Amino acid sequence: MTDEATAFVPGHITGFFSAHPDDDPSAAGSRGAGITLSHGVDVRVHRESGPSLRLNGDPIDVDAVDAVLEALDAGDVVVTAETPLPLGAGFGVSGALALGTAYAINAIADTRRTENDLVGIAHRAEVDAGTGLGDVVAQARGGLPIRLDPGGPAHGRLDGIPASPRVEYVTFGSVSTEQILSGDTRALTAAGERALSDLRAEPTPSRFLALSRRFAREADLLTERVGDAITDVRDAGGDAAMAMLGDTVFAFGDSLSAAGYDPAVCSVHAAGATLRSAE
Amino acid sequence: MTDEATAFVPGHITGFFSAHPDDDPSAAGSRGAGITLSHGVDVRVHRESGPSLRLNGDPIDVDAVDAVLEALDAGDVVVTAETPLPLGAGFGVSGALALGTAYAINAIADTRRTENDLVGIAHRAEVDAGTGLGDVVAQARGGLPIRLDPGGPAHGRLDGIPASPRVEYVTFGSVSTEQILSGDTRALTAAGERALSDLRAEPTPSRFLALSRRFAREADLLTERVGDAITDVRDAGGDAAMAMLGDTVFAFGDSLSAAGYDPAVCSVHAAGATLRSAE
Repeated sequence: MTDEATAFVPGHITGFFSAHPDDDPSAAGSRGAGITLSHGVDVRVHRESGPSLRLNGDPIDVDAVDAVLEALDAGDVVVTAETPLPLGAGFGVSGALALGTAYAINAIADTRRTENDLVGIAHRAEVDAGTGLGDVVAQARGGLPIRLDPGGPAHGRLDGIPASPRVEYVTFGSVSTEQILSGDTRALTAAGERALSDLRAEPTPSRFLALSRRFAREADLLTERVGDAITDVRDAGGDAAMAMLGDTVFAFGDSLSAAGYDPAVCSVHAAGATLRSAE
Repeated sequence: MTDEATAFVPGHITGFFSAHPDDDPSAAGSRGAGITLSHGVDVRVHRESGPSLRLNGDPIDVDAVDAVLEALDAGDVVVTAETPLPLGAGFGVSGALALGTAYAINAIADTRRTENDLVGIAHRAEVDAGTGLGDVVAQARGGLPIRLDPGGPAHGRLDGIPASPRVEYVTFGSVSTEQILSGDTRALTAAGERALSDLRAEPTPSRFLALSRRFAREADLLTERVGDAITDVRDAGGDAAMAMLGDTVFAFGDSLSAAGYDPAVCSVHAAGATLRSAE
């Protein structure tokens, strides 16, 4: 056992999803598909009087992190996270904080959990907090995850699109995940189920992008700025879609730069959450 | 679609396992635990009159690769693989060849399979060939995989040990997987089930190593040279175990070098099989 550990958790953009509430937070979640990113969150945990959480140097409260610390009986620890990703813009930063905290705590405390145990704890924490439904299980897997079933590892099967395209994204601002998830999600869920069924018939990055674009429109979630950017990209011969849930447009290859935007650029992250420090 | 694609598949050392035959090769497999390695196999596929397979420049026949090419109706392709890992020494090279071929073929042909589909095809091919029972699903996952159930993705759940230790190994020679898997596996399977149950109670790298060492002895698979090396490492204060199935000893950290050996050194590979070429 050491007194300090760091986990890396990839960012995750959901392209489309359906919401599946359940009284049991382990079984609750979403189905859908997304992209895990080489841009992610480094979560460092060390023993010090706390608990406290800092993100990019600033104190911040994240309910899902508090719940993970409590579930693992972490005691006095300080969590210090660094990320290039914006918060609340559809990159799964809260899920990454919860999952990274679980991995790092397990490395410094004698908690003896498997990876599925830790993913389950972080998933429940995120669902209970109302800040996400499927980011944690996707971030634990890596790649281009397809969430076949809702729920944590004991419930939800995952699959993936076999590809590793370059990713571009531009963020215009935030969208409240809590507000949308707590509203009427029936139309959204019907659109998400259609997209998932169509993706499984043709599991390729370009089809994923087209189905994500269709989903944002059908679910009535498209923001004006993302809608304009998608139009620009399509006019330039490319394709793009909206990150669920954030005022963020994403695309593969160089589609956003080719349309005159100045996007952040990263790649698909082949691995899921990983402990950075060796045993 | 391109005419050429390359996939990387990590090597996989099984520490202990139980064998679970089934008339359906998708459901057949093994339970157990192992290590995926940053040392792996690069599998390049390109369109050319064939089929043919070369490994490190030499022509080679691998039944599981032929079965994958047939399952995906690959047509005229040539498979060119490169690896620093020895064949037949417990590193899952045949599983890596089958899985890498499946990923690369899917990238150049219009086969529209998901990752689980491709893993299932490679798993069945490997089981039918009698060359492996659990390497393919572990190699598709990455990390330190725990195979909770036997079988391909539609059947077998996986978990993992949350850690990323440095790995050392020394290979003395080959052991025939086919010969052992086609014999009486009852004692082996009982020992493997005990080890799996004990690992789940304490899922750490050091416990995995101790249980793997116990398994090799209980299953009566320990070779003389691996037995001697384990004794040397333990005399030097470390721990080591035998790769299933090969005349190979492995350890974490610097345990083999500290005991005077000159091991190959790599790390745990956090990701599973990955397509190297972008879309």
